[in-house]
Amino acid sequence: MKKAVVLYSGGLDSTTCVALAQAAGCRVHALSFAYGQRHQIELEQARRFAGRLGISEHRIVSIDLRQFGGSALTADLEVPKDCCDEPGIPVTYVPARNTIFLSYALAWAEVLGCFDIYIGVNALDYSGYPDCRPEFIAAFEQMANLATRAAVEGQGHFRIHAPLLQLTKREIIETGLRLGVDYSLTHSCYDPDASGAACGRCDSCLLRLKGFREAGLTDPVRYQARG
Amino acid sequence: MKKAVVLYSGGLDSTTCVALAQAAGCRVHALSFAYGQRHQIELEQARRFAGRLGISEHRIVSIDLRQFGGSALTADLEVPKDCCDEPGIPVTYVPARNTIFLSYALAWAEVLGCFDIYIGVNALDYSGYPDCRPEFIAAFEQMANLATRAAVEGQGHFRIHAPLLQLTKREIIETGLRLGVDYSLTHSCYDPDASGAACGRCDSCLLRLKGFREAGLTDPVRYQARG
Repeated sequence: MKKAVVLYSGGLDSTTCVALAQAAGCRVHALSFAYGQRHQIELEQARRFAGRLGISEHRIVSIDLRQFGGSALTADLEVPKDCCDEPGIPVTYVPARNTIFLSYALAWAEVLGCFDIYIGVNALDYSGYPDCRPEFIAAFEQMANLATRAAVEGQGHFRIHAPLLQLTKREIIETGLRLGVDYSLTHSCYDPDASGAACGRCDSCLLRLKGFREAGLTDPVRYQARG
Repeated sequence: MKKAVVLYSGGLDSTTCVALAQAAGCRVHALSFAYGQRHQIELEQARRFAGRLGISEHRIVSIDLRQFGGSALTADLEVPKDCCDEPGIPVTYVPARNTIFLSYALAWAEVLGCFDIYIGVNALDYSGYPDCRPEFIAAFEQMANLATRAAVEGQGHFRIHAPLLQLTKREIIETGLRLGVDYSLTHSCYDPDASGAACGRCDSCLLRLKGFREAGLTDPVRYQARG
């Protein structure tokens, strides 16, 4: 059975990617990162639900992006609320995050002897991050095939799969539901409260809620009561 | 004064890169990695000598490549000896290592607001690693300029400087000596003994010794007595 490394945060998009990799016939080796993010609950859920999602192997790599700072997700900046449509790249951007995440995925894939890497980036209903764009994914794939012994020696060709790239949030949710994803096992909020309830107001919550609304569905995760 | 991020291992090549970045008028922000490498003494020396080399800021990032395995430098494989000219990519290859290192350098550079990254890879007297080749460096640079807010918003263009790429070990040493590098403050061995003395027989030692020999010089570091 073919193997795939899937970047898996426990969120809606990456969990849909897990299901898509499985539907493509792959055993999923899921990779999560503890990168000093404020929403640690994301990781706890990712670990807890990996088995129920049929993930074959789950690794959590600790990387300390806090020592560089530069993002509301890793430094002491305020997570912006209710401003989904503000122009420009938001303060939740983490410098070079997807580059670092994919680099680790590439290392693990090479050791596993597999050439398929999945990442749940999205270029439509996305937050404007440069490392979520198709041109970034293509450039990383090209670099990966020059960087590694496995590719250079001709054992295979690395492919960075970004199957959600051109889907709306609604289409992502509908795709996942068709594949049997239980979205109550996912978590998206950038700023949950201590109980894990989503804020409903950060970029990530607003996009998620919009997706469920447009699909004519109710998001099964728990939200904080609005004051 | 311009800033540069320099990948700095404490070895001969990266220390020469520090001097070259300084000669280009940059304040050097040096980045080292604790990646489960067997030659921890490399890092201790890097930390100890950073000040004497005029490095403005030195950070050591811990990354655990051991959990992926796949290399004699991070797993329990034997470091090969006396086989400098064996064909193929040696077992000391660490999967995606330079990709991961440059990704962190990119993150830090973006936070520092600088666009110059130095890496001491070499395509002549090198060990055959795919991520030491000019085509890899060019592909990484292209990817970096698509990956980051700073580049996408037009604040600058990232350049991955690999000034040693086309130099022989002899030329690297001669370049460093012209810039005043004290090579007794560097360390290259993959398999030093407990006292820190170099083995003189791994790829890295053999290349270094060849460089000093061809320059008509004696390597100032200490080697183990041969049995």
